[in-house]
Amino acid sequence: MMFKQLGVIGCGLMGGSFALAMKKARLVKKVVGYSKSPSTTEKAKKLGVIDQIAESALLAVAGSDIVLLAVPVAATETTLRAIRHMVKPDVLFMDVGSTKGDVVQAVQAALGDAGGSFVPAHPIAGKESGGVEHADVALYQGRHVILTPTSKTVVSQVQRATDVWSALGAQVFKMTPENHDQAFAAVSHLPHLLAFAYFQSVAGQADGRDYLNLAGPGFRDFTRIAAGEPTVWRDILVANGERVLAQSALFRQALDSMEAMIRSGDTLGLEARIRQISEGRAQWQMGMPKPPSVPSK
Amino acid sequence: MMFKQLGVIGCGLMGGSFALAMKKARLVKKVVGYSKSPSTTEKAKKLGVIDQIAESALLAVAGSDIVLLAVPVAATETTLRAIRHMVKPDVLFMDVGSTKGDVVQAVQAALGDAGGSFVPAHPIAGKESGGVEHADVALYQGRHVILTPTSKTVVSQVQRATDVWSALGAQVFKMTPENHDQAFAAVSHLPHLLAFAYFQSVAGQADGRDYLNLAGPGFRDFTRIAAGEPTVWRDILVANGERVLAQSALFRQALDSMEAMIRSGDTLGLEARIRQISEGRAQWQMGMPKPPSVPSK
Repeated sequence: MMFKQLGVIGCGLMGGSFALAMKKARLVKKVVGYSKSPSTTEKAKKLGVIDQIAESALLAVAGSDIVLLAVPVAATETTLRAIRHMVKPDVLFMDVGSTKGDVVQAVQAALGDAGGSFVPAHPIAGKESGGVEHADVALYQGRHVILTPTSKTVVSQVQRATDVWSALGAQVFKMTPENHDQAFAAVSHLPHLLAFAYFQSVAGQADGRDYLNLAGPGFRDFTRIAAGEPTVWRDILVANGERVLAQSALFRQALDSMEAMIRSGDTLGLEARIRQISEGRAQWQMGMPKPPSVPSK
Repeated sequence: MMFKQLGVIGCGLMGGSFALAMKKARLVKKVVGYSKSPSTTEKAKKLGVIDQIAESALLAVAGSDIVLLAVPVAATETTLRAIRHMVKPDVLFMDVGSTKGDVVQAVQAALGDAGGSFVPAHPIAGKESGGVEHADVALYQGRHVILTPTSKTVVSQVQRATDVWSALGAQVFKMTPENHDQAFAAVSHLPHLLAFAYFQSVAGQADGRDYLNLAGPGFRDFTRIAAGEPTVWRDILVANGERVLAQSALFRQALDSMEAMIRSGDTLGLEARIRQISEGRAQWQMGMPKPPSVPSK
């Protein structure tokens, strides 16, 4: 047993799945959970995701030697301020946020030098449906987890974080918060924004309902991520807004260029463009063996 | 046995899957196939998709009482001109194109009054990978097939077409070519264009390769359709260009509006917008039981 008590702050899909996986891997004896909504922790307890309900974030930290923050990223600083008196150097703190620059800033602002035991983490995993009722013991298995330690993060805690995620079957990479946010603006945050906007543009049309009845498997897959959690995605898109907007500008350039070909009936140009894209996508595979060649701490 | 010989013109994923399904359902005794590339028909014969290779489109029609055109939509008129002398009223002709206005025009231009035995069809089915090697006996099972007969289409042929697709396990709907093209610009053609442009904008960046290595399941599903067949999608986007561009303009409005919220940090507005979209998408299911309430012939 690696830890005696896991404190989970935010018992949703991500936090709940982490708790289940930690218990299954026998890495922790007991899980204490806190959520803003009491009905969530009650559900989590009923489902066996947590063993004990904590009445506050601070009480979820008390007695824990590993703590996972799994709240929408914008709530990170407030949450850390609420638990700062219990943040000790021998306890491993992690989050699961999809943006890391803002989390690193929140850690610095709320914890200062005590933030050395906080290892910012982003597991590249998710599901169509959020909530503790969808918590999944295998959510992190075979997935990438990005750690973004700073110059203040204690090296031994980074090692413990690596060991924990590896023990859950994930592959761990290290990146700077800046490189992380840049990359995920491109491969995750922008596609969510595009899927949201696209779904709205169809559903919001006069005949949108009829159109939706006709939609097939391509539509299904393209819009799956448009069912994302509102509070989670609100925070991500605002926290990483500048980079997302820059990526959107690049996307619009590519779209403009293809639309110009359609408008002018440039079938040769359009075919060549689509061929290049189609071959590129056909070659791509998730979780490519090569780790990203990005500077790590 | 409903038919004695099926002639397939274009032995790719769609044509090949139709041949396999027709044979499995014992609706046809013999399948004769033609493709522009001889290596395709040879592969189709080796795989048991077709029984006999035809050296020309015309020879695939000779002796057939049902003919399926499964070529990129822009090739429809040329193909029909090549077989027009064999287009007889008692033979059922169908296509599988994703656009229908241009197919109807091609039928009129190439066949004139003889086009009454041609029933324009669009099965809402597909796969990440094209080609006869991916032909799938179950491709059309449980899927929607839209027929878009015109005032010139012979009613008994529409009934035969309906019977054939139903026997293959598909659900058949009728729409006008115009309504079809309008709806599919929204739910299929635009998402393909967006997925193409998005994948290019990521892959084309200086650090694009590193970013792609980090991409997860959301990216995988969002970009699946970016692997579409270049010739097929070139033709669809050009044939239905005006409607696709109009749908893209609606999409850009929705994107502009969400980007304005990100830019101004309007978290409340953004959350409300995402919530509406997310709930709408969560409620949507493919192949909804209700047939589309669109005027049919």
